[in-house]
Order: sequence, then C-alpha cells, then structure tokens
Amino acid sequence: MNKNRLEAFSDGVIAIIITIMVLEFKIPNGNHLSDLIPLLPTFFSYAVSFLYVAIYWNNHHHMIHTVKNINGKILWANLFLLFWLSLIPFTTAWMGEHHFAKFPMLLYGIILLMNAVAYTILQKSIIQHEGEDSILLKAIGKDYKGKASLFLYLTAIGMTYFNEWISGGIYIFVALIWLIPDKRIERFLNSI
Amino acid sequence: MNKNRLEAFSDGVIAIIITIMVLEFKIPNGNHLSDLIPLLPTFFSYAVSFLYVAIYWNNHHHMIHTVKNINGKILWANLFLLFWLSLIPFTTAWMGEHHFAKFPMLLYGIILLMNAVAYTILQKSIIQHEGEDSILLKAIGKDYKGKASLFLYLTAIGMTYFNEWISGGIYIFVALIWLIPDKRIERFLNSI
Amino acid sequence: MNKNRLEAFSDGVIAIIITIMVLEFKIPNGNHLSDLIPLLPTFFSYAVSFLYVAIYWNNHHHMIHTVKNINGKILWANLFLLFWLSLIPFTTAWMGEHHFAKFPMLLYGIILLMNAVAYTILQKSIIQHEGEDSILLKAIGKDYKGKASLFLYLTAIGMTYFNEWISGGIYIFVALIWLIPDKRIERFLNSI
Amino acid sequence: MNKNRLEAFSDGVIAIIITIMVLEFKIPNGNHLSDLIPLLPTFFSYAVSFLYVAIYWNNHHHMIHTVKNINGKILWANLFLLFWLSLIPFTTAWMGEHHFAKFPMLLYGIILLMNAVAYTILQKSIIQHEGEDSILLKAIGKDYKGKASLFLYLTAIGMTYFNEWISGGIYIFVALIWLIPDKRIERFLNSI
Repeated sequence: MNKNRLEAFSDGVIAIIITIMVLEFKIPNGNHLSDLIPLLPTFFSYAVSFLYVAIYWNNHHHMIHTVKNINGKILWANLFLLFWLSLIPFTTAWMGEHHFAKFPMLLYGIILLMNAVAYTILQKSIIQHEGEDSILLKAIGKDYKGKASLFLYLTAIGMTYFNEWISGGIYIFVALIWLIPDKRIERFLNSI
Repeated sequence: MNKNRLEAFSDGVIAIIITIMVLEFKIPNGNHLSDLIPLLPTFFSYAVSFLYVAIYWNNHHHMIHTVKNINGKILWANLFLLFWLSLIPFTTAWMGEHHFAKFPMLLYGIILLMNAVAYTILQKSIIQHEGEDSILLKAIGKDYKGKASLFLYLTAIGMTYFNEWISGGIYIFVALIWLIPDKRIERFLNSI
Repeated sequence: MNKNRLEAFSDGVIAIIITIMVLEFKIPNGNHLSDLIPLLPTFFSYAVSFLYVAIYWNNHHHMIHTVKNINGKILWANLFLLFWLSLIPFTTAWMGEHHFAKFPMLLYGIILLMNAVAYTILQKSIIQHEGEDSILLKAIGKDYKGKASLFLYLTAIGMTYFNEWISGGIYIFVALIWLIPDKRIERFLNSI
Repeated sequence: MNKNRLEAFSDGVIAIIITIMVLEFKIPNGNHLSDLIPLLPTFFSYAVSFLYVAIYWNNHHHMIHTVKNINGKILWANLFLLFWLSLIPFTTAWMGEHHFAKFPMLLYGIILLMNAVAYTILQKSIIQHEGEDSILLKAIGKDYKGKASLFLYLTAIGMTYFNEWISGGIYIFVALIWLIPDKRIERFLNSI
C-alpha cells in the first residue's frame, strides 16, 4: 500500500481545519478601527491554533516522509489524529469568545493532549510496521520532545485549577519548542 | 484515462465533508464546563459520522488502489457516491440537534443506505470495466460484508418505526464491522 | 510549465464549491418528516447544481488530460472559469430559497452562461497554445455541443421574461446533454 | 526534502481561502433583481480579493516550480504566507459590508502589505537555500515589481488618512501590474 492518498487526504483535512478557523471572525458591526478591539482575543487564539495546526502538519509531513509503505493500522491511527485535530477550531473559538476563561482553557489543553496522544500512537504504529530498520525510530531517538509535551499538557490541564494563565503560558511554550519542527529527522536524513 | 484526478477530487470532497461537520458545533454562550453538556448529542453524532466518512474514504482508497484505469461510467458512479456522502453532514446535524429522535434517525438510515447503494454501483462499474481479471472482484469475493450492510441498513430503517435506539445500535454495529476496512483487499494483495 | 498544480488547485476549488452548497441546508426546527418538506426546493436546486459542477469537473478533467503543457494565459483562463464556478453556490441558494422565482432563475442562467463562456475561452486558449496538432481540437471537432449550450443558455435567459419554468427545463436539458461528458474525447483517445 | 506536499498543502489552503469568501454573500430576503443591488460592494470586494489570491497562487506556483528541494525554513516561511493569506476573507468582507469605508480600506492595505512581506521572506528563504545557482534569483533579477508593490501598499495605507478611494485605486493598480504574473520566470525558463 502506498502512502500518496494518505498524504493527500491528510493535507486536505488539515488545510480545511486551519482555514475554517477564520470563519469564527465575525465582521464587526461598526467600521472604526476600535471595532476591531473586541476581536483581539479571537485573533490571538486563532494565531496560536494556526501555529499548532501548522506544527502538526509540519511534523506529519516529516514523519510520513520517512515512511516507505503503510498498512491499515497506520491509516486508522492517522484518521484518529485527524479527528482530534478537527476539534481544535471549536475549542479555539470558545477560548477566544470567552477571553481565555478557565474552562475553555481546560478544554483546549485536553484537546491538545488528545492530539499529542494520537500523534504518538501514529508514530508507534509506523515504527512497529517498519521494525528495527525504521528511519523514523532512529530519527526521533528517545523522543524526549514528544514525552515532554505530553507531560507539559498534563501539567497545563492541572494548572487551570489554580490559574489558567499559567496553562496558557505552557501551551505557548510547547508550541515554541516544536517550532523548530523536526531538525531531528532533517538532520538524520542529511547525515545518511 | 488514468485515475489520479478521480482520487484527488474524491479526497478533496471527502476531506471537506468530514471537516465541515465540525461547523455544526456552535460555541456555547456560557464558559462553564456544564455548558458543554447540551453539545454531547451533537458531539456523539459527529463522532459516528466521522467514523462513517472515514470508513468510506478508507474503502474507497483500497478499492481505487486496485484499479488500473477508469472510464466515464466509473467517473459518474464516483460522483454519485460523493453526492450521497455530501448529505451526511446535514442529517448528522439534524440527528444531533434533536437528540436522536425517530425521524432524524430514519433519514440517517436512508442516507447511509443510499451511500451503500452508490458504493455498490461504483464497485460494480469497476468490476464490469476490468472484466474477469479484476483484482477487485477477486478481493471482495462474494462481498458478504457489502450485502450484509445493505440488509442491516434496511432493517434499521424499518426498526425506527418501533424503536429508534435499535436503529442507532445497528448503525454503530455496521460501522464496527467495517472498521477493519479491507483486510480482504489487503490480504489478497499480500498473497500475490 | 507542467499542469500538475493547475489540476490540483482546480480540483481543490471545485471540490469546495460542490461541497459548500450543502451548508445552505439549514436544519429544520422540528424533528418530523414533514419538517423536511420546505427544504425540498433547496434540495432540488442543490441536486441540479451538484450535477452542473460535476459536469464541469468531468469535462475539465478530460480537457486538461489532453494537454501536454500550459502557459500563463491558460492559467488565467482557468482561474476565470473558477471565478464563475464559485458563484454557483450563491445563485443556487437564492433560487432554492425563493422556490425558483423569476429573477433567481434569471441570475442562475446568467451565471451558467458566464461559466460556459469561461469554459470556451479556456478551451480556445489551450487550442491556440497547442496549434494544429492539438488533440483537444481534433477531439471536440466543431464543438456543436459547446455552441448549442451557449445558445440554449441565452434562450433560457430570455425565456425567464415569459415563463421561468421553461428556463428551468432548458437548464436541466443542457445538463442532460452533457451528462455523457466527453464521449468525444474518450472515443478519440481510444481511436489513436 | 521534496516539495510535493508543500505544493499540495498550499494549493489546499489557497483553494479554501479563495472559495470561502463566497460564503460572505448572504442571500437577499427578496427575490427581485433590485435585491441584489446592496450586494454589489460585497461582490466587487470579492472580485478584487479573488484576483489577489489568484495572483498569489499563480506566483507561488511559478516560484515553487523553480525550486528543486526545500528545507525547514522554507516550510515555515510558506506557512507564514498562508497565515496572512487566510486573513484576506475577513478584511474583504468587512470592506464590502461597509462600502469601502476608511478603516476597512486601511486594514485591507495592511493585510496586503503583510502578504507581500511574507511573500518576500519566502522568496529570500528559497534564494538563500539555493545559493548563487538559484534559478529564482536569476528569474526575478532585481525584483523591481516586488519592491514597487511594497512601496505602493505603504503609500496606499498612508493615503487612507486623506482619501480611501485613492488607496482603493492603488490596490487595483498593484493587482493589474501582477496580472501578467511571471512573464519573468516563464521567459527565463524558455530562454534556457
């Protein structure tokens, strides 16, 4: 089984997810610059989620790039990831609309966590399918970044109980550590 | 005629169908966790339909994978399938909004039945085009799963007259028997 | 310049156009079968427009299939076609919402006419680029079907002045004569 | 790293951006031709933005066409461009709804400027990655058109202070000078 359509379908779904978030920007009734101010939280939450979805696309791109062929399990692990990615626009809009209130921030963390879990499952399915020669396995090594992210999301989710702004800080921090998306895979590929 | 654009266009349409269903989640007015509770039926119906569309994509992927080249009839059979798939978001939203009431459940069954019929027509068009050497024909064998699904959808549609929850159970049951999407084709391809 | 991205981009845009029309189906407030009856005109106009966009995709598929390479003029002629295709969902919704009233039917005809004009321009750009050896030129011959469509759209537009149902009949008639999309090209390709 | 998925993902996102702008056309309540008149500014702003997004797709197409392989920096520069492109539908709708008022026109200029800046960054990342042999570098030469556009957008933004119609004229003028999108690259490629 080749991977072309898995890539094409994932690209399609992720492209739509990243774009429909914009539909949450309702045009203001007024036509003054100050009418844009109430939209700032929505804009900020959009920018963060755009970054997150972009990171997932980027890492997905690099991960699938290392794969030679796929199986049914990988297809379903990929669809499971797409399912959780598809929930990001909803929670992004809720968070923006309610100015980063406690519970929207909590839900945002849970959705991010589920995405990270789904991504980890997809990664494991690929490595399992490829066996010991897996380029992906060699490239991610002990996957410190992946494990740290899961831990940080869990921390952020717990932190909403005390202060949701700390959680927000953690979400941005995790995004930043992934912004350099796959130096690992890229470097590894260059080294062989 | 090659099949690349049929795949690309189908991937595009299915990716959009699976994603626009999320637009039905209207953000709650409140910002408390309990404000999410009224959304649970919508979420559940989304999850089931996501699964259904994912199964169709998956099976479509495997079916077209076996095809060498296509003709005009296959193109139109494919568009007929896409038409019925495109009606899933509407009926999903109606079902979720009205908490799985009798008639939305009935319509859901009819749309699923029409999708199964359209899929069967597409399958037959491909086999007819390929003749006796059809890999697809050998892979699906007597197509017990396809025939059973048609029968189960009809049963579920009839059952809504008595109890719509039995119908709901059947819809989930059919999804589960397809979840292992094409062991048949995959196994067959591995065996040659 | 190769044609891959022109195909991919056109597939993307047409896939979105054909799918967002579904967003016009607003879920009824009630949950009875009879609550679906007011949606019937919307459904019918959706089905006709789905057919039209499908025909355009199909013919576009066959037309570009004959092309070896493209130039800037073809790119822009293609974008001009996509622009007019993108207006189909709006006029479809207006027509459905107002139960095929005179002026929505008139606008529908104008948009269909502009699409046919744009398609003809794209066709001419390709033939001009390819010169006398153009497979497309040989395949379409005198393009009776294309010319007849333009004439029929003009007739239908004029007819809305007297009776919009005649126009509606013409729109469906034109769709039907294109339903067998490109026997011409397909036959020609098989003959060489 | 090859460029296929960068192209596919960009095509997907740009196709969605260019198409969801149509969703801003709300169907009029009436069914008379005169009910369309209030939609004219929305239609006109849609047409201009369609042209702009089409120009970006066209130039993106030509630019990436010259590239042999990509790196992580190019991926992110591309995503940065897609982010700013994704904001065009919002500002287009605001501008159309408020009949080209001063501040919507200002925001439109800022978004166009940011798109031009992002495009320039993407261009520089590619040239930097390819070094002195860069086909892109040779093709764009001193990039007079790119520099002139940046200058014209800045002028237009400043001009909204005095008269927003001058700004509008500049936006259309810039679109027109790009309409012949890449004669430069196309000519250069033909010359080698």
